Amino acid sequence: MRMAELSRTTGVPVPTIKYYLREGLLPAGERTRPNQANYDDSHVRRLRLVRALLDLAGMTIIRAREVLDAIDDPGTTSRQVLGTAQRSVAQSDGSVRVEDREWAMGALAEVADARGWHLHDRGHVLDSLIATLVAIRDVGQHILLARLEDYATVADQIAEVDVSCFAEATTLEEQVELATAGTALTDTLLANLRRIAQKNALPPDWP
Amino acid sequence: MRMAELSRTTGVPVPTIKYYLREGLLPAGERTRPNQANYDDSHVRRLRLVRALLDLAGMTIIRAREVLDAIDDPGTTSRQVLGTAQRSVAQSDGSVRVEDREWAMGALAEVADARGWHLHDRGHVLDSLIATLVAIRDVGQHILLARLEDYATVADQIAEVDVSCFAEATTLEEQVELATAGTALTDTLLANLRRIAQKNALPPDWP
Repeated sequence: MRMAELSRTTGVPVPTIKYYLREGLLPAGERTRPNQANYDDSHVRRLRLVRALLDLAGMTIIRAREVLDAIDDPGTTSRQVLGTAQRSVAQSDGSVRVEDREWAMGALAEVADARGWHLHDRGHVLDSLIATLVAIRDVGQHILLARLEDYATVADQIAEVDVSCFAEATTLEEQVELATAGTALTDTLLANLRRIAQKNALPPDWP
Repeated sequence: MRMAELSRTTGVPVPTIKYYLREGLLPAGERTRPNQANYDDSHVRRLRLVRALLDLAGMTIIRAREVLDAIDDPGTTSRQVLGTAQRSVAQSDGSVRVEDREWAMGALAEVADARGWHLHDRGHVLDSLIATLVAIRDVGQHILLARLEDYATVADQIAEVDVSCFAEATTLEEQVELATAGTALTDTLLANLRRIAQKNALPPDWP
């Protein structure tokens, strides 16, 4: 199909499609004439994925490109595939002070030991986790910090559902998509479900 | 304290503080001379909250301002307070087609009925939830859709922890901060914990 039809099928305006092509988020179509290219169903699917990552998972262009690169060039083992899932989480700028990092690692070590989590070698995610814990402390939300154990327990339950999904994927490519794009999209899914559940969880005698 | 000290205490550069003042994210200091103002501990705390919302919760300036406005002007009942928590979630552009919306509502109704969730009157969050479900379907991740029930179960568990935190808050202002900023920051916390838990949840015989 031509670009106009790709636009109609996906609802993405032509100038936006051209922007994604320039940014390397969408592979070029098959060139048929100097100023004309053909697109197929793989472009439709990719374009929907790009929109989902940008609009719903809230990724930047740079992060979305990292995820798409991982999908296009998957690791060779399932464990490496899991590693690429790390790219779909917000990156901290790494500006946490040494003493704050030590405090956060202390709080995490307890929780991690209890569940057999390995915190070493978790660079990107661990940095973001540490920055988040320090921020929660610094804005004075100690009530939340005291529940770190409870949130970790829920995280284990989410991960169990996630991993059972990965196990259902039949190809390595599908595993990578689930671990990266799927994890990012279900972050948003969970954030929304959680807010609906919050109101329901209020005791009836609340004012 | 003067702006230079506010900058040193929080690690936020002076030009950034000026930007936040212009954008209405930080209240003006007490003016002492035409070109000089005094800031206090409330500014330190607010500045840390602004950074947490922008950098870690990944909010836009507009969304962060909505959350801060809610904190500064809380509702009069705890239920209204919960309503403001909705502002901390990503907004969809609402461009979901009627038939897609109906499909998503059908999938949600089953899950909601089973747990007594009320889906009516959940405008903002429901729109975002519907858009996310449609996106997950359109990128072909049917494995995830089949687990909507499981993710809803986990959302209920997160909400239980959340609401028990709200109950510990002693002032209405603290409740609003927990429901808005706290929920947004624990979205990020959970996203990170989940990724650490994922690797741990892999069966040992995985390749």
